[in-house]
Amino acid sequence: MSKTKDLAIGLDLGGTKVLAAIISEKGKIISEFESKTDTNQDVSKVIIKTINQLLVKSKVDVNRLLGIGVASAGVIDSSKKEILYANNLNIENFPIGDILLKEFLLPVKLCNDANAAAIAEWVWGVGRGKNNLVYVTVSTGVGAGIIIDGNLLKGAKDSAGEFGHTTIIHNGKPCECGNIGCLEKYASGTAIKKLANDRLQSGEVSILSELLHSEKEVANNHIAFAAKEGDLFSIKLLNEIGNYLGIGVVNLIHLFNTEVVVFGGGVMNMSDYILPSVKKYIKEHGIKQMTEDVIIEKTKLGKSAGIMGASGLFFAGEREKTSLTT
Amino acid sequence: MSKTKDLAIGLDLGGTKVLAAIISEKGKIISEFESKTDTNQDVSKVIIKTINQLLVKSKVDVNRLLGIGVASAGVIDSSKKEILYANNLNIENFPIGDILLKEFLLPVKLCNDANAAAIAEWVWGVGRGKNNLVYVTVSTGVGAGIIIDGNLLKGAKDSAGEFGHTTIIHNGKPCECGNIGCLEKYASGTAIKKLANDRLQSGEVSILSELLHSEKEVANNHIAFAAKEGDLFSIKLLNEIGNYLGIGVVNLIHLFNTEVVVFGGGVMNMSDYILPSVKKYIKEHGIKQMTEDVIIEKTKLGKSAGIMGASGLFFAGEREKTSLTT
Repeated sequence: MSKTKDLAIGLDLGGTKVLAAIISEKGKIISEFESKTDTNQDVSKVIIKTINQLLVKSKVDVNRLLGIGVASAGVIDSSKKEILYANNLNIENFPIGDILLKEFLLPVKLCNDANAAAIAEWVWGVGRGKNNLVYVTVSTGVGAGIIIDGNLLKGAKDSAGEFGHTTIIHNGKPCECGNIGCLEKYASGTAIKKLANDRLQSGEVSILSELLHSEKEVANNHIAFAAKEGDLFSIKLLNEIGNYLGIGVVNLIHLFNTEVVVFGGGVMNMSDYILPSVKKYIKEHGIKQMTEDVIIEKTKLGKSAGIMGASGLFFAGEREKTSLTT
Repeated sequence: MSKTKDLAIGLDLGGTKVLAAIISEKGKIISEFESKTDTNQDVSKVIIKTINQLLVKSKVDVNRLLGIGVASAGVIDSSKKEILYANNLNIENFPIGDILLKEFLLPVKLCNDANAAAIAEWVWGVGRGKNNLVYVTVSTGVGAGIIIDGNLLKGAKDSAGEFGHTTIIHNGKPCECGNIGCLEKYASGTAIKKLANDRLQSGEVSILSELLHSEKEVANNHIAFAAKEGDLFSIKLLNEIGNYLGIGVVNLIHLFNTEVVVFGGGVMNMSDYILPSVKKYIKEHGIKQMTEDVIIEKTKLGKSAGIMGASGLFFAGEREKTSLTT
């Protein structure tokens, strides 16, 4: 007697880590495993090792697995199951589908990491019950997953939602993508760290200044800590990041006339100092009739949104129907 | 015996004129009539007079009319049939649906002017056969109508596509909408005229300079003429407008991953000097995989796009099915 296939692997391929999990069709995370990545490593080896370690750790019968859902950073082709371009991972035309199929003999589905999170937020999170939602991820880079009238916006080549590569500053900083003045150059985790270190180097006053005597550079968790301690340098910097995100989000609302904007990604551990600025910027600059009712919130699913949305590629239909009592 | 209802009125309510037409379900323009508007007039009176004059001119039996489709500038509510906000027309919460129903006893449908043009371009124009299209109108203001996977993007309140009110310049010029650095402040017909006159006043050299002795200010048709005469001042200015539009269009392509961008609106009578700059900007700044195949073209329907799309609200389904041999 064949067993029911009631589980799927969700793989979240980010700029700094690979997160893999086995998730049930009710949305429960059965088991998860995380590996670090850097651009010098062979990404496919890291991914395969991570999934193998997950399977060992979980002791799940592989016959219960529907497949492997992958949420990846960058520009993807979901029909070819290839990652076309992901500067944070230093890969190009990466055949993730073929690699995983060959290694694990399981069906593979692929989507953008932000699209995965948008699906998860729309079905289980902040956007539950709404038809229009934008999920904005702020981590190593900046991206967006967009739900329009209950459908995921994929675009002609499954590459819609490159929010981080929209210009907010005319003649601004050049970006690795080829564009200039991209939001990602001003409001990503990478940008926050660079901005903080540049300002500290130029002599601005902060409780972080002393740290630079012992550390080569300040990291974002230091900035988060300093902001909580009331460090004006850090709080002002994070408010500025909120303003930059505000420009982008007003643009999104004016283009999409959405109902919900959910923020996720590693940088949102500093949301207390960023989101109020975002909301203030929207209130002061948005067209009132289009912005006044928009829900602006931090993710409730946190770092699980990517793996949940990725696994959800295998039972999204089911999930929409269930009462989702997870 | 009741006659077949095979015609609809299409009304295009713009910043400087009201264009009304009677259009057949095959897309043929039976008759049209145009009136000028300005912000000091009673807009509803101008509209009613225009439609009455159209009906008189066309001699069409009103029993053949399905209704009045309205394409309007600004932010609209298609379910309430109200124009909520249109700064170019100086109106707010304008109940166009009630006004026309009361006057003509015909069903009324309302959509954004750019949405109407997008429908027309998608069904009959540049985007025929494609599933994803953005129509960008550059006239008094700048707007967009967006087709995603064969559906019009309406948004939560039918107000999606406010492309002219997306910020492209951080800390840029304040806009009437409340936002700052809006594309519309840099690349609309209004912006072109202002930029040209400011530069001429400051003494820049142009064949237009002489005109300022006899005229109070230079108009856009003067600039169009001068560009055709090889005036470097005018050509450079229009190239710059193309660059501004390029910033916005790269943002659109990165967000929507669209297949076609169609340009329309009065300013496109200068498209020879604007669109090459737009295309160059996109080539130089867009993510290659997302931009290389995108069709960038001027409208083929011209100023009829608004009235055709507006009337199309009454027989869009038919039009999609027909071979559209107009």
